[in-house]
Amino acid sequence: MDFVKEFSTFLFENKIIRFGDFTLASGKKSSYYVDLRLVPSYPHQFRMMIKYLQNQIIKDIGLEKFDSFVSVPTGGLVIASALAIETVKPLIYVRNKPKEYGTSKSVEGKIWEEMKVVMIDDVATTGGSVVNGIKSLKESKVKVEDAYVIVNRMEGADQALNDQGVTMHSILNIIQITQSLQEQNLIDDNILDKVKKQIEGK
Amino acid sequence: MDFVKEFSTFLFENKIIRFGDFTLASGKKSSYYVDLRLVPSYPHQFRMMIKYLQNQIIKDIGLEKFDSFVSVPTGGLVIASALAIETVKPLIYVRNKPKEYGTSKSVEGKIWEEMKVVMIDDVATTGGSVVNGIKSLKESKVKVEDAYVIVNRMEGADQALNDQGVTMHSILNIIQITQSLQEQNLIDDNILDKVKKQIEGK
Repeated sequence: MDFVKEFSTFLFENKIIRFGDFTLASGKKSSYYVDLRLVPSYPHQFRMMIKYLQNQIIKDIGLEKFDSFVSVPTGGLVIASALAIETVKPLIYVRNKPKEYGTSKSVEGKIWEEMKVVMIDDVATTGGSVVNGIKSLKESKVKVEDAYVIVNRMEGADQALNDQGVTMHSILNIIQITQSLQEQNLIDDNILDKVKKQIEGK
Repeated sequence: MDFVKEFSTFLFENKIIRFGDFTLASGKKSSYYVDLRLVPSYPHQFRMMIKYLQNQIIKDIGLEKFDSFVSVPTGGLVIASALAIETVKPLIYVRNKPKEYGTSKSVEGKIWEEMKVVMIDDVATTGGSVVNGIKSLKESKVKVEDAYVIVNRMEGADQALNDQGVTMHSILNIIQITQSLQEQNLIDDNILDKVKKQIEGK
């Protein structure tokens, strides 16, 4: 079984992706909800996901072509941390807001000018939190050219990252997931239609 | 070289532990500052730390004796996530505050009644964030009997966790670190005295 089919089925069967009427953080309505924070509760699938991501990065970029992974808390950080230990690569992360105590800073970890990092996140919607992270990194003269997400919701993140000079890669997108589930008769055709319309109307 | 000496020296040489005058999150003064968020920037030492923690848990409890790791964002979560993938054990985490959107909940991940978890955090001071996490887990009928931290600052966390029926284990405590650095003449005797006084006056 290919990864897209296997992983999509896993997400659906464990209610990590659900279809219905949801309201997102942004206030926008959505015909589905995907919460990858549940994935680490399934260690074999979590490992499969991390290994697939690792292989994709090796194929696209090569592990020796960048200095560190970077992520934004918290969903992405769980993925990036597992990836970092598996690949024996450094990991830094960008806070949403600098801490107000101790040694205040927005980037946690060792950084230097012209350092090259690869951004990791769980789900991309409009790309907001990743774009904020990229801006903080740029202020510190850290270079980001590539970002990887597990699920691309296809609601503008590609373009938002592109505007920052960053290429967005995704392991899966919402159409691939929904199509795979529909082909297996796990969901109705009209659900696939709804998801497609949501994306077109972005 | 033993782990305490090797890891303490690594922390000191890379300014992950620093001695001087600091003000902590609580407003309390401290004669040292330790920021384990820098550790994942050093992948070999990060791995050494995770492997040491893994072996300690295997020795003390056994990986088959509990259902999942649990952590509190963000410092502890980076450690717990690396530990989870290495041991192929599930990972859940407890938010400080429930999200106000999507599916609101304080525990992220798959939980069930009488589930047994082991808490992981980076640094323990008074134990505040871990105790809050334990309380949230108890509300969900999740059982916590053991908590592991990398560095115990020895300022009351042991007792605070004990009050919750949880045994706190630490990989290192601040006296071990400071003593090891003093024995190697990396810091003055009066620094060790200051740290000792800080702990006694807790």
